[in-house]
Amino acid sequence: MAVSEFEIIETYFSHTGTPREDVVLGVGDDCALLRTPPGQLLAVSIDTLVEGVHFFAGTDPEALGHKALAVNLSDLAAAGASPAWATLALTLPDNDTAWLKAFSAGFATLAERFGVQLVGGDTTRGPLTITVQVQGFTDPGKVLRRDRARPGDRIGVTGTLGDAALALKLGAGVEPAAGTGGALTERLHRPSPRIEEGRALAGLANAAIDVSDGLLADLGHICSQSGVGALIDISLLPLSGAMAAHIKETGDWSIPLTGGDDYELCFTARPQLTPKIEAEMHRLGSGFCWIGEIGQAPGVRCRGLPGGALKGVAGGYEHFGTP
Amino acid sequence: MAVSEFEIIETYFSHTGTPREDVVLGVGDDCALLRTPPGQLLAVSIDTLVEGVHFFAGTDPEALGHKALAVNLSDLAAAGASPAWATLALTLPDNDTAWLKAFSAGFATLAERFGVQLVGGDTTRGPLTITVQVQGFTDPGKVLRRDRARPGDRIGVTGTLGDAALALKLGAGVEPAAGTGGALTERLHRPSPRIEEGRALAGLANAAIDVSDGLLADLGHICSQSGVGALIDISLLPLSGAMAAHIKETGDWSIPLTGGDDYELCFTARPQLTPKIEAEMHRLGSGFCWIGEIGQAPGVRCRGLPGGALKGVAGGYEHFGTP
Repeated sequence: MAVSEFEIIETYFSHTGTPREDVVLGVGDDCALLRTPPGQLLAVSIDTLVEGVHFFAGTDPEALGHKALAVNLSDLAAAGASPAWATLALTLPDNDTAWLKAFSAGFATLAERFGVQLVGGDTTRGPLTITVQVQGFTDPGKVLRRDRARPGDRIGVTGTLGDAALALKLGAGVEPAAGTGGALTERLHRPSPRIEEGRALAGLANAAIDVSDGLLADLGHICSQSGVGALIDISLLPLSGAMAAHIKETGDWSIPLTGGDDYELCFTARPQLTPKIEAEMHRLGSGFCWIGEIGQAPGVRCRGLPGGALKGVAGGYEHFGTP
Repeated sequence: MAVSEFEIIETYFSHTGTPREDVVLGVGDDCALLRTPPGQLLAVSIDTLVEGVHFFAGTDPEALGHKALAVNLSDLAAAGASPAWATLALTLPDNDTAWLKAFSAGFATLAERFGVQLVGGDTTRGPLTITVQVQGFTDPGKVLRRDRARPGDRIGVTGTLGDAALALKLGAGVEPAAGTGGALTERLHRPSPRIEEGRALAGLANAAIDVSDGLLADLGHICSQSGVGALIDISLLPLSGAMAAHIKETGDWSIPLTGGDDYELCFTARPQLTPKIEAEMHRLGSGFCWIGEIGQAPGVRCRGLPGGALKGVAGGYEHFGTP
């Protein structure tokens, strides 16, 4: 028997995430009605995942539910915001209840981890497309944005770079990547949004972005929007063991420099704030590295990159870019 | 030459709609940053239009830009909210600059009419899918919701019913419907969200919904969520000349009762508020009719419906419903 749109919403998405006191009216009416905290800015981000473009057909729906929310939370992290609410627009080819159950479970688990409530949505029929919008709050005096990097700033990156892209290269689009024990696959399918790190950096860092399109592309956005340039030192890039081994074997640095889907934070900060930022990251137990410096000359340059180390890749992942 | 995702956003969507003072940071960063007015509730709605499901391939992109925003604004209208911001997640099969230009123009014209600024978005490659989220404000003491209808309430409807569905039936999916001079087609492709009417009804009506899935289905939502029933009088339904002629000719009442895409408001209110509501609607120059009454018995019943007048249609338009 066909399940109506209304029943889909009711069954799988009515009580998703953490129930919040600021939600006056959630899923099930024309609009969600929400109470915003006084004196805070509302931070809003929207992102879409398309089957066959952002993930392979057959990808574990539980992982998709996680990732669809994670990539949005990552944008809030890059703004230094605290997450609050999400909405979900889900376009589905058919009404597969097992798929819906797993997807909503993956979404809900991550939502609960960050105190997010799903407050509204729309389900439509069509090619599998998942759009999530998240909203959160940020202190007006502690906003992280892309266009505030200044010459002399140090450039920092959380976590390690390139693992998701390496997983994809090793064939972990649907199943775990060969010989990696699943760690790389986790990085591809269940990225961990750096919410705590973003909040800690708010008020300390000058500029920040999340690394979704690759380090060179995303740091490039900071530079162009700030009217500055960047010099990064290849030897300082944070690499996982698997990533380091791959580079040693192939000599190819393109993955950590241009691979997308990392969802780490790249930020810039005044050098005198180095001890404070290091202490904050230590407090959170978060790995991070200083990888270079902001300068006057436009563009992003790499120090220590061997010739031919960027095999055929000119920039980060761009959906409409030159293939 | 391929145009990158970033350039698409920059070129077509950077300055869309009315520039608003409450937008601290708009399109182009990880998040939009917005100032919310103190003491107001935030109203949020998200809706998706899918090619081949909600509109035909080849539909005028300018009309699509209008409609994608209009169907969302209609949800704000049903909540009695004043629109403020929109975000747009656009999945496109290719980078057709003429299409993008027309789409963004249609979106922008309607946005400007209601003082809405586009504050963020995502463009991805894939089958044509358009998701818009709108946000607005509403007075906490004047909220319109679905679950507040009470026995004895009168049931009102703005505008006329069934025109969009009739246009579709007459073949106006892409071109104007035959012999209607384009008026029906306008109703299908450029629905007018009843924002002013919703704001006027806020604080007067008990319950409201926008008629997107058909009168029976949407009034049915009010009834089931309020724990009441409705009795509507067929002879009171507001019909355009074309709709009345079609019923006279075919004897088929299914279109005004179950046809979707009207985006009129259906609301319920205490009978003693009749003069006040009529005065408000008169002030706005808005057509509206009283069509029935809320009662205790569950379900939606129609008085005066001839036998066989609902040809083969059991309910409103539901994407996953029995075809």
